[in-house]
Amino acid sequence: MPKIRLVMEYDGSNYHGFQRQLNANTIQSELEQAIYKISRESVAVIAAGRTDAGVHALGQVAAFNTETEIPADKWRPALNSVLPDDIRILESEAASPAFHPQYDALHKSYCYLIYRKKERASFYRKYALLCNQQLDIKAMQRGCSYIIGKHDFRCFCASGSGAKTWERTVYICNLEDKGDWLKLNITADGFLYNMVRIIVGTLLEIGRGRYQPEQISTMIASCERSQAGPTAAPQGLYLCSVKYPQE
Amino acid sequence: MPKIRLVMEYDGSNYHGFQRQLNANTIQSELEQAIYKISRESVAVIAAGRTDAGVHALGQVAAFNTETEIPADKWRPALNSVLPDDIRILESEAASPAFHPQYDALHKSYCYLIYRKKERASFYRKYALLCNQQLDIKAMQRGCSYIIGKHDFRCFCASGSGAKTWERTVYICNLEDKGDWLKLNITADGFLYNMVRIIVGTLLEIGRGRYQPEQISTMIASCERSQAGPTAAPQGLYLCSVKYPQE
Repeated sequence: MPKIRLVMEYDGSNYHGFQRQLNANTIQSELEQAIYKISRESVAVIAAGRTDAGVHALGQVAAFNTETEIPADKWRPALNSVLPDDIRILESEAASPAFHPQYDALHKSYCYLIYRKKERASFYRKYALLCNQQLDIKAMQRGCSYIIGKHDFRCFCASGSGAKTWERTVYICNLEDKGDWLKLNITADGFLYNMVRIIVGTLLEIGRGRYQPEQISTMIASCERSQAGPTAAPQGLYLCSVKYPQE
Repeated sequence: MPKIRLVMEYDGSNYHGFQRQLNANTIQSELEQAIYKISRESVAVIAAGRTDAGVHALGQVAAFNTETEIPADKWRPALNSVLPDDIRILESEAASPAFHPQYDALHKSYCYLIYRKKERASFYRKYALLCNQQLDIKAMQRGCSYIIGKHDFRCFCASGSGAKTWERTVYICNLEDKGDWLKLNITADGFLYNMVRIIVGTLLEIGRGRYQPEQISTMIASCERSQAGPTAAPQGLYLCSVKYPQE
């Protein structure tokens, strides 16, 4: 059966996350309803990463099977014509029948935005974490360096995640200081549940002087969630891109 | 009676404009309810400009009378603690009893944002007009030059506005080309109802080649609303600042 691969963005503010749920508005259900409107097919869409409620995406990848003869590139305008305007398909193309957006991903990139000013905060409250406290940004940046590499990241994993292995490889982890904004960029071969948000919560505690940057190594070695910082709010988090082999 | 003057910003997306209305959520009613929560006083707040539904403010000015002894500068944190987070008080200070935010204003500045890209449009749909058509921006910029000056602006005034005079002086009118964004800046001693949005709608028609820039002069001379372009959508419009004497 032909498979369609989508690259999509969404403003997650009004959704209970990606994954379909009973009686809750989700990205997956909007997408499946939109596909149904176009092709009268009831499909199950699979995504590269299941974003939580309030989390955004700039380059989520999703895929579904279809028996219709709609050319792959026409799915983009067709879906955009029926989807709500806070979900946009950026690309649609034919994928191999075996393509799996999550299992085939080589690495995923997230970013997390922190807004530092009082002015305009009313506009960014759903798109960033608002934090105008004094922060030791250099210390937070040093903290990032301890996250890069292959580690057991259990300390940065929310309980009840159902993960079977906790070892992941973080390729990029840096914090850009853009004045009014802080932007964390993180790329890994996979992420545990709430991993980026717990890393951000921990880095903020470093910024406030509660932890030293090098304590990140101790937290990782402990394999204990309780050793790391709190989980930062969802609205600062963006799934930016997903990379596959031969791209 | 002491008078408090506020400078405030708000994300207008979730409101039916500034002005209090029966059975509708407005900025004025939120503000008056917040004042009531703090001082148990039922006040009528007056603003420099009554923004429409979906229109935003970065520097709206408002004022109210109070008999409480709360120091003027404490109104800012007090109101922010009870207002919804899409309305923020930036400043609060004592004003003279005669101060009137609308009548005393020397000039007001608005800006209007147009977003030109497909990517990220889902995030900006409530904060800009989305337009990725080809536009002759140089022509639009030439069009702006015909708006500057003292004119009868009836052609840019929505019907049913109740205005008694249509003469206004536009001090600044320019269109910045920022690549992915267009930003119109306009400053005048006053604005007619929907004036900025009709000017934007007209400039967009110039950008599309439907009018020539110099036709703005003919439209103004006609004093006929039907001679100008359509009214652009509210979500691109921001009340940026209000200027008073001795500031």
